[in-house]
Amino acid sequence: MTTARGRNAFYAQSGGVTAVINATACGLIQAARRCGFIGKVFAGRNGIVGALTEELIDTSQESDADIAALAHTPGGIFGSCRYKLLDLEHHHAHYERLMQVFAAHDIGHFFYNGGNGSMDTALQVARMAESIGYPLTCIGIPKTIDNDLLHTDCCPGFGSAAKYVATSVREIGRDVAAMARTSTQVYVLEVMGRHAGWLAAAAGLAAEQAGDAPHLLLFPEIAFDETDFLQQVQTCVQTWGYCVIVASEGVCSASGHSVARCASQGDVHSHAKPGEVGTTLVKLIESRLGYKYHWALVDYLQRAAGHLVSATDQQQAKALGEAAVTLALQGHHRIMPTIERLSDTPYRWQIGQATLEAVASAERRMPENFIRPDGYHITDACRIYLQPLIAGESWPPYRNGLPVHARLKQVMVTPKLPAYRL
Amino acid sequence: MTTARGRNAFYAQSGGVTAVINATACGLIQAARRCGFIGKVFAGRNGIVGALTEELIDTSQESDADIAALAHTPGGIFGSCRYKLLDLEHHHAHYERLMQVFAAHDIGHFFYNGGNGSMDTALQVARMAESIGYPLTCIGIPKTIDNDLLHTDCCPGFGSAAKYVATSVREIGRDVAAMARTSTQVYVLEVMGRHAGWLAAAAGLAAEQAGDAPHLLLFPEIAFDETDFLQQVQTCVQTWGYCVIVASEGVCSASGHSVARCASQGDVHSHAKPGEVGTTLVKLIESRLGYKYHWALVDYLQRAAGHLVSATDQQQAKALGEAAVTLALQGHHRIMPTIERLSDTPYRWQIGQATLEAVASAERRMPENFIRPDGYHITDACRIYLQPLIAGESWPPYRNGLPVHARLKQVMVTPKLPAYRL
Repeated sequence: MTTARGRNAFYAQSGGVTAVINATACGLIQAARRCGFIGKVFAGRNGIVGALTEELIDTSQESDADIAALAHTPGGIFGSCRYKLLDLEHHHAHYERLMQVFAAHDIGHFFYNGGNGSMDTALQVARMAESIGYPLTCIGIPKTIDNDLLHTDCCPGFGSAAKYVATSVREIGRDVAAMARTSTQVYVLEVMGRHAGWLAAAAGLAAEQAGDAPHLLLFPEIAFDETDFLQQVQTCVQTWGYCVIVASEGVCSASGHSVARCASQGDVHSHAKPGEVGTTLVKLIESRLGYKYHWALVDYLQRAAGHLVSATDQQQAKALGEAAVTLALQGHHRIMPTIERLSDTPYRWQIGQATLEAVASAERRMPENFIRPDGYHITDACRIYLQPLIAGESWPPYRNGLPVHARLKQVMVTPKLPAYRL
Repeated sequence: MTTARGRNAFYAQSGGVTAVINATACGLIQAARRCGFIGKVFAGRNGIVGALTEELIDTSQESDADIAALAHTPGGIFGSCRYKLLDLEHHHAHYERLMQVFAAHDIGHFFYNGGNGSMDTALQVARMAESIGYPLTCIGIPKTIDNDLLHTDCCPGFGSAAKYVATSVREIGRDVAAMARTSTQVYVLEVMGRHAGWLAAAAGLAAEQAGDAPHLLLFPEIAFDETDFLQQVQTCVQTWGYCVIVASEGVCSASGHSVARCASQGDVHSHAKPGEVGTTLVKLIESRLGYKYHWALVDYLQRAAGHLVSATDQQQAKALGEAAVTLALQGHHRIMPTIERLSDTPYRWQIGQATLEAVASAERRMPENFIRPDGYHITDACRIYLQPLIAGESWPPYRNGLPVHARLKQVMVTPKLPAYRL
């Protein structure tokens, strides 16, 4: 295995962005600048697409202050993409092109910042480089608000989304409690989570005492039972005067049909679109129980809320970016730095590592013992796991009443190769 | 006019709650405790309903620390209501009952914290008291995220909702910009505002440079033109790669039909329900332009976001609560303290006053010169007005990663009268 000291690095953001993926970029670029063994860090414009099209952003043109400002800038500063590179056999030309671009710009380190699909892509890139004898260090860096990567305590982006969702539902609870006597009695908050209910679970942290919102959580892991659900809502309103529900977008009936698609269109093959679960539930509640309702769809807000990041999440995101550089320089390859939990209370963690093979395209779901036996809330075990991930506040700077985000120069590297069509 | 020193006060929260209405309660209760001329402050459980049902919360049972904590607690701590007292003629029995309850508990001051409808109610209460010779000081205190009260620079609750909406859309802009190349190109954020576009306008503050989100604002004041709107969206995507739209829930076509109702049901008589404008717009854009979209509905989140209040708004809310007590003790009556703007930059303000007659049931809309001639964004004049209202941050305390809200004892006063049915 070659460690190409002094050669350039390529960094790309992949998939849905988060409130802290730029903190990872910040940590990585700062570490690369500090170490003295990496030439320039080139970032892909719009992720791996930028490598294919030879649209490389020269991060060496950015000031230290601007790179530092990335730590509190949500979104993907260099652009991300939802462009899936298939395996070597099906997309061989793309991988060849990647190698040509990397060679043209003396890129010896490939840092790919994404979820489990991206870890698989990083692995394919590694295999391609090895197959042609191109010296390339391939390091994956975890990122996903879905919190579904294996072999890491948590995924950067999740803790901040979790903090946002839990804060939001606590605030909604205060509002609805005040209005319930004569107005809104039921509230539904739709959150992300197609396959795993991690964010709905995190919302559950807002409930600390009996009667606190949220009262009911709907997980993709638990088959939705309409009759039982309506009974739960009614009991809640009768007991506490109101009912606040957090629903995962992926909540499904026992037959595996999305609650939204099942009720509204009978289309069992496609996912519910944003808002469909929320509207389906409130219409159901209104028609069957007659309660007044309001609802909210937080959608990208939950993953972009740079104004309310978890300090823990932000620190981990940055540390993983730094660790990627360290691992590369230590000669590691085909690996992803991870978060290892050392203790729950106080929360202590360190950077660990997992092979790309171990994390690629695999998915971690919530453990069964994190969901209350009746299926409508979280257990203490879940609280113990989630609690530290939302801990700590880290406010961005504000100007004119609004958070200030980094604005980079984004100077493009002059292309050296012919144009390439995706 | 009688100033009843030493007599008790009744305070009630009315209508939709806000992130800072409890700051007003805090200011009022603290001022009443300090002054030494008011007995106890009783709060209506669920607003004016609590006065009718004789459900009075004895705030003297709460610690100073708990009252101070109200300043950073969103929602309506004593409960609010959407229960409209009609005029004296139609609801005379209710007004008689109010007088009986006030007399039974030696209430000499009536503080009513709400919007223009509530100012009308406060006026009716004053007239009733005067008609029977019951000595009662009636003071209205402004509150509404709609920012539609006359004779005040702004309304408490609006500045915080405005800050939340502007921050959220800035963050969304960062997210969509990163995804637009291969995924989401159009984003719609639906905000409150049935009759006036103040919150959509506030979202416009997030755009500081050409190309910044939000790109298009839809106001209830501007007739929605589908063809022109779609052209604007297309031009925006072609120019900047993506398009972020903030739509008021009350946006209407030239015929006055809600955009949502018009497109979906042809029902011209009812308001759009939460989310209908958002879904209508994204479906329109998808079907006609083919762009990938996401959307969000912030609903109560925008008025309950205690974690992101405007420090200016919070200070004004508290100051108005204090001013209400001062005005009452000075012998003022049938009056509402207001915010008077002394200068824009730096923003300086003082407490003023308006008669309840002047503010009751009247509605302030956005001045025409606040909306850009093409109808899709705000003007500099609007920025100058709005900018100071979102200025300053005031973080609540956090525990376990979440904002801490006040939990009051809410000791109920023993009823002295027979039960009363609403």
